Amino acid sequence: MSAKLIKGTDIREEILEEVTKEVAELKEKTGKVPGLVTILVGENPASVSYVTLKIKTAHRVGFTEIQDNQSPDISEEDLLALIDKYNNDDTINGILVQLPLPKHIDDKKILNAIDPDKDVDGFHPVNVGRLMIGGDEVKFAPCTPAGIQEMIVRAGVETSGAEVVVVGRSNIVGKPIANMMVQKGPGANSTVTIVHTRTKDLAAHCKRADILIVAAGVPGLVKPEWIKPGACVIDVGVNRVGTKISEKTGKEVAVLRGDVDFDAAKEIAGSITPVPGGVGPMTITMLMVNTLKSFKFANGLM
Amino acid sequence: MSAKLIKGTDIREEILEEVTKEVAELKEKTGKVPGLVTILVGENPASVSYVTLKIKTAHRVGFTEIQDNQSPDISEEDLLALIDKYNNDDTINGILVQLPLPKHIDDKKILNAIDPDKDVDGFHPVNVGRLMIGGDEVKFAPCTPAGIQEMIVRAGVETSGAEVVVVGRSNIVGKPIANMMVQKGPGANSTVTIVHTRTKDLAAHCKRADILIVAAGVPGLVKPEWIKPGACVIDVGVNRVGTKISEKTGKEVAVLRGDVDFDAAKEIAGSITPVPGGVGPMTITMLMVNTLKSFKFANGLM
Repeated sequence: MSAKLIKGTDIREEILEEVTKEVAELKEKTGKVPGLVTILVGENPASVSYVTLKIKTAHRVGFTEIQDNQSPDISEEDLLALIDKYNNDDTINGILVQLPLPKHIDDKKILNAIDPDKDVDGFHPVNVGRLMIGGDEVKFAPCTPAGIQEMIVRAGVETSGAEVVVVGRSNIVGKPIANMMVQKGPGANSTVTIVHTRTKDLAAHCKRADILIVAAGVPGLVKPEWIKPGACVIDVGVNRVGTKISEKTGKEVAVLRGDVDFDAAKEIAGSITPVPGGVGPMTITMLMVNTLKSFKFANGLM
Repeated sequence: MSAKLIKGTDIREEILEEVTKEVAELKEKTGKVPGLVTILVGENPASVSYVTLKIKTAHRVGFTEIQDNQSPDISEEDLLALIDKYNNDDTINGILVQLPLPKHIDDKKILNAIDPDKDVDGFHPVNVGRLMIGGDEVKFAPCTPAGIQEMIVRAGVETSGAEVVVVGRSNIVGKPIANMMVQKGPGANSTVTIVHTRTKDLAAHCKRADILIVAAGVPGLVKPEWIKPGACVIDVGVNRVGTKISEKTGKEVAVLRGDVDFDAAKEIAGSITPVPGGVGPMTITMLMVNTLKSFKFANGLM
C-alpha cells in the first residue's frame, strides 16, 4: 500500500478534543456553554440512533444538549411553534430537525422555519446562499462538505491551484463542496469541475484530479485507472452491499463499500479515505464545530 | 468568418416582444400589470443612465414603473423604511436599489432588506441559495447569468453533457452561471469547470470547452488557440481600452473590448457573442423577465 490513509476516526478525535478545550475556556470566560437541541418526530430506528449519537457527542464536548422527542402525530403547526420556541431561546445555538418527518408534515416548511443563525446543518437557503457568496458572508458550511474540506487540509494536501474533480451534484455534498473549494482563501482556491450522470467522459475527468471527491452513491464506480498517481481521494460513498457477522459482537451487520475501488486505488493514490472510518465520522464532528461557531457568533466572540 | 454571431441586441428584441405580449395578455386577464421600482440615491452619472434605461425598458414592455430618486443625504434608516414601504406594496413586484450607495450607508444591509420575493436582481442570499439548490426552488436567477443561459439556449447550442468552462469566479457572473449550468433540467445538465487566477493551465481548460463563458475582466485574455473548433464562446467582458470619436454623434466614446480576442476567435468558434452587442443588452432584458416572473408568482400564475 502506497497511499497515506486519511482516517476520519482519528481526525474526529483531534477536532472533538479541540472543541472540548475551547468550550471549557469559553465557559470560564463567559459562564455559558453552547446549546444544541435535536428534534425527533416518531421513532424511526435509524433516526433514533443518529440523534442519540449527536446528543452523546454534544455531551462529550461539554455542550448543553436537549433531546426533544415528539409524537409522530404532532401537527405541522405545533412543530413550527416548537421551532419558534427554540429560535427565541438564547441558550440554544443549534437546532436540528431529524429527517425524515411524517408524511403530513412539509419538510421544507419546517427546515426553512429554523433561524438561519441557528441552522447548524447549513441547509437553509440563506446559508446555502452565504456559502456560494463566500468570504465573510459564510456562517455554516453543511457538515459533510465541511468535514471533507477539513480532512483535505489536515492531511496536508495543497488546495490552491489544485485540480479538484467532484463526482456527483447533490445538494448535500457535490454542489456545496464544489462551491467551497473554488472560493478564495485557505483550504480552497482550487480549479473545480463537477461531473455527474450526464458527463461524457467521467474517467478522463477523474484522471486529471489532484483531489478527487466522489459522492455518487455507486459502489466501486471509480476504477484504479481513473486515479492520477499521487492524488488525494476522498470517498463519500457509503453503500450497503451485503451483510456479515461482526467478529466483535457476533451480530449481523451491514457490509459497507465506498464509491471507489479502495483496495486497488490505495496503490495509486497519494492519500485516500477508507470506507467506513473515512468521511462518515466527520459529519457529526462538524455539527459540533458549527454549534460552537454559532455560540461564538451569538456572543460576539467571532 | 465561420462563427455564427450570437447577437444580444437581436435576442433582446425577441425577448422584450415576448414579455410585452405576455404583459398585455395578463393585463386583460387580471386587470393588473407588473410594477418595478428603481431606487437611486444621489446623481452618479453612470447610475442615472442605467436607471433611466431600466425605467425606459420597463415602460416599453408595459410595466408600471417608479423612478424613486433620493437625496445623497438620505439616512440608512430612511432608506430602509423606503424599502419596507415597497416590500409591502402589492403593486410592486420588483425592487432595484442602484449601486453604488453613498459611504454612510451599508450596501449589504440595504440589499438584504429587500423582500427576496421582490429581489429581481437575484443577489439576496436567499435567492443565491435557491439558485444553488436548483429545481423548483429557484425564483430569480441573477440577470447577467440568466441572460447568458438564454443566449446559449436560443442559439440552439446543446448544453446536456456539454463541457462548460467558466473563466472567472465572481458572485455576479462566474459562480452563478456555473451553478446554473450544472443543474438538472433543460438549458443545463452540463459538466462544469470554473477556472480563475489560481488555475495552473487556463489554456488547456479553455481548449476542452464546448461552451466557453469568459467573465475575467481582462481584455483579450482568451487567445484563438485556446478555443476548441466549433465551440460556443460567450464573452462577458466589457473592457474600456481607449476612446474614439463616434461616427454617428461626433462625440468621444469609449472603445470596448471583450475578454476574448474576437477577430481571431470568430474564425475558430462555432458561435460567438460580439462586444459590444453581445451579453451586455441581456442584463436589463432579464430584469424584465424576472419582474414578470415575480408578478406571476405574486398572483398565483406560476
